Amino acid sequence: MSTTGKVRGSYAKTPARRREILEAGIDVFSTSGFRSGSIREIAERVGMSQAGLLHHFSNKSELLAAVLQLRDDRSAEVVPVDDEHAGIATIRGFVSLLEYNATVPGLVELHCTLSAEATGAEHPAHQYFVDRYAFVVGQMRLAFERMRDAGQLTENTTPEGAARAMVALSDGLQVQWLLDRSSVDMAEEMRRYLRGILTVEL
Amino acid sequence: MSTTGKVRGSYAKTPARRREILEAGIDVFSTSGFRSGSIREIAERVGMSQAGLLHHFSNKSELLAAVLQLRDDRSAEVVPVDDEHAGIATIRGFVSLLEYNATVPGLVELHCTLSAEATGAEHPAHQYFVDRYAFVVGQMRLAFERMRDAGQLTENTTPEGAARAMVALSDGLQVQWLLDRSSVDMAEEMRRYLRGILTVEL
Repeated sequence: MSTTGKVRGSYAKTPARRREILEAGIDVFSTSGFRSGSIREIAERVGMSQAGLLHHFSNKSELLAAVLQLRDDRSAEVVPVDDEHAGIATIRGFVSLLEYNATVPGLVELHCTLSAEATGAEHPAHQYFVDRYAFVVGQMRLAFERMRDAGQLTENTTPEGAARAMVALSDGLQVQWLLDRSSVDMAEEMRRYLRGILTVEL
Repeated sequence: MSTTGKVRGSYAKTPARRREILEAGIDVFSTSGFRSGSIREIAERVGMSQAGLLHHFSNKSELLAAVLQLRDDRSAEVVPVDDEHAGIATIRGFVSLLEYNATVPGLVELHCTLSAEATGAEHPAHQYFVDRYAFVVGQMRLAFERMRDAGQLTENTTPEGAARAMVALSDGLQVQWLLDRSSVDMAEEMRRYLRGILTVEL
């Protein structure tokens, strides 16, 4: 391949090229975090120059936003968001997401590292995570409200509390799993929690 | 104060000076993480030169280890570890720790950022966190085993599952609390979970 061809190749804004960069972004941000992860390192992984990469994403924050969007798209495929049919199907979808997560450690690491880093108000992904948590907790609360109305929650369980606890449990189990994969079954621990607050089969 | 006096002051290995450096280390590592946090920045916060700081801690990893030890010492004051009397007192102590944590956001941020960063095997605090989680989960499992033997757990609750869930819930609630302090009461959410698995008053 000629040098010219190579340069043209890495500048080409094909979906495949973009996807390749995002996958490299997941790898780098998940191990180094956003602050330490560099455009240079991401570019190197896909065999591009920094200039070539910046042709696809104009800066590191824009790349981060696209990486997070990719993560959310994948999650949405596993947990269909459908307000009208919210209920136990939503909760089952959330458990499936933990099963899926166990197959993609890079995405789990990305989530844990960035959500922790982004608790600081000055972080470029701070507002994203504030909104994302409000959205996910809100979706789960809605599902639990429907279930409460259908008599599917134990007496002392509140939809708000169950939603916050389920999301928190998921985050914490991800950290424990990353630290010791052989001892932690994220989906099973979540089912155990849910069985304690549901009056119906999960 | 003469220049000589100043230098001598920052080199003096007094406990107060050491403590001051550790507090600055907590601030810097909690907002920037270990990878991005720099000795230079920590030194600046306490008005020392880098050389002066390195007289107290020979490198960044050694400083990190001391920061984590300080964090653990504080936690141990709140949750007394006492195998012989493990039981509901241990669990109550853990809930108190969440109440205490709500007063020290810097330590909470430190824990969330570093535990996520350190899930990577190459991180200098990786083994510390592997050991720390095994220790804390082990302490809680022991307490729940005693409670199970005393008939204080609901039928389907296992000591191992409850221990992992309690620690996971604590981690996840900390992230949610850092993102939205006014909406999350960490200790109350934890009590809610515990009431669901205990047959005795918390």
